[in-house]
Amino acid sequence: MDYKYLGTDITPDVLKAMKPEERVQLCSELRDKIINTVSANGGHLASNLGAVELMSVFDYKQDKIVFDVGHQSYSYKLLTGRFDRFNTLRQKDGISGFPRITESPYDAFDTGHSSTSISAAMGIARARDLEGKKNEVVAIIGDGALTGGLAYEAINDLGHSKTRMIIILNDNEMSIDKNVGGLSKHLSKLRISSGYISAKQTTESFLRKLGFVGRGLIKIILAIKDFFRFLLYRKKPSMFEDLGLNYYGPIDGHNMDDLIKAFEAAKDIRGPVLIHVLTQKGRGYEPAELNPSDYHGVGPFDIETGVTTGKNSYTTVFANTITELAVKNPKIVAISAAMTLGTGLDNFQMKFPSRFFDCGIAEEHSVTMAGGLAVSGFTPVVAIYSSFLQRAYDEMITDCCFMNNHVVFAIDRSGFVGNDGHTHHGLLDISYLNSMVNMTVFSPRDYQDLARCLKYSIENVKGPAAVRYPRGASPFEAEGPLYTDIADCILPHVVCDYGKDFAIVSTGKICEEADRAMEILKEQGILGKHINVSMIKPMPAKEIWDLLVGVKAVFSLEEGIISGGFGEALERELQILGFESDVTVFGVRNPIVRAMSQKDQLKYCGLDGETVASSIKSALS
Amino acid sequence: MDYKYLGTDITPDVLKAMKPEERVQLCSELRDKIINTVSANGGHLASNLGAVELMSVFDYKQDKIVFDVGHQSYSYKLLTGRFDRFNTLRQKDGISGFPRITESPYDAFDTGHSSTSISAAMGIARARDLEGKKNEVVAIIGDGALTGGLAYEAINDLGHSKTRMIIILNDNEMSIDKNVGGLSKHLSKLRISSGYISAKQTTESFLRKLGFVGRGLIKIILAIKDFFRFLLYRKKPSMFEDLGLNYYGPIDGHNMDDLIKAFEAAKDIRGPVLIHVLTQKGRGYEPAELNPSDYHGVGPFDIETGVTTGKNSYTTVFANTITELAVKNPKIVAISAAMTLGTGLDNFQMKFPSRFFDCGIAEEHSVTMAGGLAVSGFTPVVAIYSSFLQRAYDEMITDCCFMNNHVVFAIDRSGFVGNDGHTHHGLLDISYLNSMVNMTVFSPRDYQDLARCLKYSIENVKGPAAVRYPRGASPFEAEGPLYTDIADCILPHVVCDYGKDFAIVSTGKICEEADRAMEILKEQGILGKHINVSMIKPMPAKEIWDLLVGVKAVFSLEEGIISGGFGEALERELQILGFESDVTVFGVRNPIVRAMSQKDQLKYCGLDGETVASSIKSALS
Repeated sequence: MDYKYLGTDITPDVLKAMKPEERVQLCSELRDKIINTVSANGGHLASNLGAVELMSVFDYKQDKIVFDVGHQSYSYKLLTGRFDRFNTLRQKDGISGFPRITESPYDAFDTGHSSTSISAAMGIARARDLEGKKNEVVAIIGDGALTGGLAYEAINDLGHSKTRMIIILNDNEMSIDKNVGGLSKHLSKLRISSGYISAKQTTESFLRKLGFVGRGLIKIILAIKDFFRFLLYRKKPSMFEDLGLNYYGPIDGHNMDDLIKAFEAAKDIRGPVLIHVLTQKGRGYEPAELNPSDYHGVGPFDIETGVTTGKNSYTTVFANTITELAVKNPKIVAISAAMTLGTGLDNFQMKFPSRFFDCGIAEEHSVTMAGGLAVSGFTPVVAIYSSFLQRAYDEMITDCCFMNNHVVFAIDRSGFVGNDGHTHHGLLDISYLNSMVNMTVFSPRDYQDLARCLKYSIENVKGPAAVRYPRGASPFEAEGPLYTDIADCILPHVVCDYGKDFAIVSTGKICEEADRAMEILKEQGILGKHINVSMIKPMPAKEIWDLLVGVKAVFSLEEGIISGGFGEALERELQILGFESDVTVFGVRNPIVRAMSQKDQLKYCGLDGETVASSIKSALS
Repeated sequence: MDYKYLGTDITPDVLKAMKPEERVQLCSELRDKIINTVSANGGHLASNLGAVELMSVFDYKQDKIVFDVGHQSYSYKLLTGRFDRFNTLRQKDGISGFPRITESPYDAFDTGHSSTSISAAMGIARARDLEGKKNEVVAIIGDGALTGGLAYEAINDLGHSKTRMIIILNDNEMSIDKNVGGLSKHLSKLRISSGYISAKQTTESFLRKLGFVGRGLIKIILAIKDFFRFLLYRKKPSMFEDLGLNYYGPIDGHNMDDLIKAFEAAKDIRGPVLIHVLTQKGRGYEPAELNPSDYHGVGPFDIETGVTTGKNSYTTVFANTITELAVKNPKIVAISAAMTLGTGLDNFQMKFPSRFFDCGIAEEHSVTMAGGLAVSGFTPVVAIYSSFLQRAYDEMITDCCFMNNHVVFAIDRSGFVGNDGHTHHGLLDISYLNSMVNMTVFSPRDYQDLARCLKYSIENVKGPAAVRYPRGASPFEAEGPLYTDIADCILPHVVCDYGKDFAIVSTGKICEEADRAMEILKEQGILGKHINVSMIKPMPAKEIWDLLVGVKAVFSLEEGIISGGFGEALERELQILGFESDVTVFGVRNPIVRAMSQKDQLKYCGLDGETVASSIKSALS
């Protein structure tokens, strides 16, 4: 497609002056650019396509626009000076897939995790008020993100403090999967009730045009209209109004003229306003319209044929194993926080609908609810991505660990995640899990190891257990399993044994990098031993020591933050037993590692096989 | 008071058969016992006095009762077999101040942190349904705890899944301080609208008595009544109904007959029910009725004169310092999560009302909102107790640390907290703060040190900073400050220097125990050096090494979990510099340390001066 507008300087004033048909053309161009870029680079497609019109109506030079998560910000990026570099989306040193304050002065706040926008925008709005400034502050949040408790905490504060700001509720009836929750039902009731609102808007805009009618009087007239609304329409008011917000909507999110009108109206309200906008996920690309879940986060794909799914990965191995175990063990139940597809639990859900619970984007509730199931004799498996599970840090401790509840945490996306960048890495899990009392922690190496550790966690561990595994596929294939008896997953395993010049003790998938380092050093005549540990906590220190007898120098290797991580735990536990020599720890010191491939991220932190080999070599000399 | 009922076997059947005046007598006895015990032992008074009647109506032998926090559970404990031992409340090996599953089969779930009850009860109710059982599951939550996002996440799930359970909203218009939030305004609107509800109840109970009217038909009739409600009363329905719950109320929480009737009615509903109960905090003890905030958590006090406040403590030093700094620096704003009094911020609030924000029991929102203020050029000081800040672990990382936002965390109640027991200890903070990128961490020793570290965090640190300080008063008084220039707070300080047999490197208030150990060992001819470190991260490792030259053995001492803590960081940073000898780490291995005095808790973990001295002695020999 040849672009008429994209690539030119589209200021808010230019946008405002556009005719309706020109706006339609601009939106087509935005969609074309997004589809082409995402199909080449991978990225978040469906939510971005749904928000094209919505993103094109802000006065970004004046106002502060705060996104939630950021899966809808591509159009905004294209309109705020990032068109030329947009082909670098999610690539090394390229445009981030999320808003970043370091990338543009028009990105007001960094995002990545759900439900933060209203809180962040409130902070920005309160700062504006303290400074006596007048600009608008806008939070854009999806109906999915609104199920997160953080968003509710913010609304509760906002409705009380009456801070002037605008919340745009981008309602596409989905988070990543189909939305759940009482809220979504409430929203669907609101959705089918558009009559009144446009009447209210018309009145307000009419009154404002009169000029001599003051704001106070407009408010009174509107309040009276509010009263009549009940008599005329007999509609329930929204829970947002119960909480103290002014509610406007629903508004067609694909009609830019309506959107602009609504925003103009909202700016006249002296308190918090929520504008309820209806959009369609995947809009403008048919495969994504039909199957938006498949087009949430995608790798590169062919535009004609669409995405293909179904490759083997750690996720599918988890999903198959848990479903298999659940056939024989009726006490197993599974819990997802709005990520049924992402965690692979869709199959479990189909087979055991009554034993599956999707709690919404609600990691905290998922974990505490699991605690309730566990004290009642069930074995809940809570499947949440590593970086999102951080939200439930406190609940894991107080509602699971302190009571020694047998809850199994299936922690996907541990370690580096690649192109989503630093907000999505699972680099802290070993550290926080290590500090949790009663928690048993597994960091399996490959598919077989994952399946075994999971089975062991469910069948042999009595208290809380965590199994962390990485994003994507396992390129590492041992020449046969390092152990056959499942109970052996708690022991250290010798991956290779060339000599006693040094030893690497590794955990998790990074095993393959350690193996590569072994081979490189072997070629140089430096002969070591590679030990892999699946169970990190409790640390099998005695057994590791046995394997280290006579070894001259010990190195640990993990894909996670050093502080509180595997290496430090290894050093501590060996020291307690009286082991003399130090452990040199290889891990991540600074977790802010931006978007690039997982392999490059390892390299960036000096954790790839080549760098590990040369680090060991120089340490030994 | 002589007890007629307390001390006898008051089963649910006995309770049910009581006459109204007998129930009044029972409640007087409960109040008497609570006031006497709390005035002797300390504890949570105001909320417990308010919930006496409410606690006396459950069929605890059949049903599962899940408390929120547990500040209202004393009467329940007295009625479920713990009267005889109740004088051991909050003492070593005594009755816990919170529900504990290890204490009684009638405690369904351990509590201590806010807003967990609905989630936990849902897990228990789902387990019941999977097992085909019929008992009731009841969550009891205060209006304060309902401002926490976790509670909302649970309600959202509950309203969707329609799990049968009862939520009792114990509405006393307060959390610990006066409640804030749009929700509290919504509740006060509901509070003044009792007309309709009792009409609805009457209808329902009338219909049920008819016998031949089926449940389905009752539902239809009630739905029609719902419709007429709007015409007749023109009242807004509650947001709980918007979210899919059945709402009953408000009901007088000090009228046991009304309460019993309401619960019986609720049991007939086949889905989730919320019963809105109005109670008065401090009921039955005049000083507590007048000033419930002062009687939330109290130490021992004289019943005649009431509690006295105003002693010096780390909290008051924080409060005075921050208020002083704010006079000169208009960019300082302060944030509390429903703990204005507890954190000492009431004075700041009075002096700078527009620069103070109480966000409700909403640690997550408090922290993300602070991030928004920080990107706008303000310096927010977020004052939250250590164990409650765990709730905002993820927000600290993604909304503050990743952007290097200058947010100052004032972390009260670090280390052991004494009689509240293990759910309230602040033992994890050093560990989790150490793993957070860009975070500067201070653990000051005494009042002066706290004031200086705080000032330095605000004026000299550029990114996120945390200052952790303990509960209570500082018994440690250095003979003069260890440093006078505030900038020196980032350096290690020599507390005493007797010789080079060993060195203790301590951080925080536990400094005094290290000092005691020094003296004990000196008397035995073992002469060491005591170094105290206020800034833990970044660790001043080079400067510490300089002080350790020639020292034969190094020990670290901290009041916190070992994994990821101060000692491990010290060992790592010294090792990276090339320091040869190991650091032997003294800290907490298992943080489940039950209620007793702070001093006893230190001793229990081998961290008191005497035990540290003997541990060092045996390590040296």
